[in-house]
Amino acid sequence: MPGEFDFIKWIRSQQSKSPLVQLPAGDDLAVLKWDASDLLLVGVDQVLDGTHFDSAIHSPCAIGRKAMNRNLSDCAAMACLPAAALATSALPKGTSLDYAKELYLGMKEAADLFDCALVGGDTASWPHPLTLTVTILGRSAGIQPITRSGAKPGDFIYVTGPLGGSILGRHMNFEPRIQLARSIAKTGDIHAMIDISDGLSRDLRHICDESGVGALLYSEEIPIHRDAFELFRRDHISPLEHALHDGEDHELLFASPSGLSGTKVIGRFVAGDSIQMLTKEGLVPVDPKGWEHQL
Amino acid sequence: MPGEFDFIKWIRSQQSKSPLVQLPAGDDLAVLKWDASDLLLVGVDQVLDGTHFDSAIHSPCAIGRKAMNRNLSDCAAMACLPAAALATSALPKGTSLDYAKELYLGMKEAADLFDCALVGGDTASWPHPLTLTVTILGRSAGIQPITRSGAKPGDFIYVTGPLGGSILGRHMNFEPRIQLARSIAKTGDIHAMIDISDGLSRDLRHICDESGVGALLYSEEIPIHRDAFELFRRDHISPLEHALHDGEDHELLFASPSGLSGTKVIGRFVAGDSIQMLTKEGLVPVDPKGWEHQL
Repeated sequence: MPGEFDFIKWIRSQQSKSPLVQLPAGDDLAVLKWDASDLLLVGVDQVLDGTHFDSAIHSPCAIGRKAMNRNLSDCAAMACLPAAALATSALPKGTSLDYAKELYLGMKEAADLFDCALVGGDTASWPHPLTLTVTILGRSAGIQPITRSGAKPGDFIYVTGPLGGSILGRHMNFEPRIQLARSIAKTGDIHAMIDISDGLSRDLRHICDESGVGALLYSEEIPIHRDAFELFRRDHISPLEHALHDGEDHELLFASPSGLSGTKVIGRFVAGDSIQMLTKEGLVPVDPKGWEHQL
Repeated sequence: MPGEFDFIKWIRSQQSKSPLVQLPAGDDLAVLKWDASDLLLVGVDQVLDGTHFDSAIHSPCAIGRKAMNRNLSDCAAMACLPAAALATSALPKGTSLDYAKELYLGMKEAADLFDCALVGGDTASWPHPLTLTVTILGRSAGIQPITRSGAKPGDFIYVTGPLGGSILGRHMNFEPRIQLARSIAKTGDIHAMIDISDGLSRDLRHICDESGVGALLYSEEIPIHRDAFELFRRDHISPLEHALHDGEDHELLFASPSGLSGTKVIGRFVAGDSIQMLTKEGLVPVDPKGWEHQL
């Protein structure tokens, strides 16, 4: 019967070389040499069977990729480069070694696209559904990290792509906007940024709360994904509602006083703390309805 | 009903100041300033309800403490200082905010003892048992990390305390041997080290495999914890067997050619790859029987 140590042995055979890594996975801790000029950014994000994916439908490779991409998208939100990652899995009893390897390869495939080294992790099995947790280390690499807290009244509200209906499949297969984040951050004119994981209304709320500002959205400018229209045909919730409140789009939402090509202005930050939307019928309040885990 | 964001808001109010932390938890990633003279050590370890603890018996504070201490013990094994940690929890639906806070405070209490800052994490809820994952960042702080791979034939095998029977309670309440690890590592005479989490027989096997050596244990020198005797009265498995194979002692096992005070020699590393034990009846092979997660 395959066990934890067979899996660890296989993982060690898979490791990519990285100039950052002095001692890779296999010891109690991995040892990295951190460049003195780089700030170290660090975060963690988990995916749970039945909540963030459905193991009856999604392949282990797709699950692994999503777990990694959520963390890479956090790097995009801060405009840093992914440097290293660690993977932790709680595998249902009876999981085959092949399934565990596919999970790992899904993570590795996503990480390799950004030269992000998988340097360690933890694996265990239990008689419950799959959980997969990725820790990400990013490096500032010459660009000051963009936080949620710098938006100013008058800044334009930008979004990098169409929103809504990610549940139809895009939530498993999105592209972390790292290059785009780096290129717009290089302008030096980005005041605040976040990736849309909880939904536009909720993630905009996060920026407003951290920055001490309010926001005015232009309903007709919000780019709506065709998936939101498809969902509307099924649930009769308007495509705009889906674009406002659905989670896991993983587009970037940011504040800038400047005009920027290749991205879309959907409103302005304003003084105060309320979020409103300008529609044909006038101003309406926007309440956060995006994703929140209830305890 | 309390949700994820109430919990996150509370966590942010709890954060300790650290010179390392430029931007604490609350953004997409935390931002740290890493000292150029420090190597960065990183690892992750999870605890699962029913496997590493029993939520019907153990308090959330004790569960949080164990999750953190397992990671702090990995720092001890490498002789580094804990610097920062991230906490990820999958909470059963219906978990109260108070319970979640106690989990966090258990982790924080353990981390604070070593000035280790909790800088981020992820929390979600689901209709399954509790999982808690801690990522640890350690810094070398003037001492070259000790790996598993440097043991040489002739080195003494040392252990820092009595072994066996941790299941009676010590597995929830052990002390990470960080100061001791640092003080012995400072001698410059430690060739390899590990913390005993999987059991003496299995963790010694790890050192032997990584170092390309074998080992000879002296059965009469292995320090046996009184808990191993207590277990023997219940299960009729000898105290020595418990000391050899039980997991989660979290004492340090290390290789050194020198005599070191305050620790216990239990054998010698030898050429070859076999692990044997010298008993009154002569040499007997020691097979790893410690803890391994079966997939």
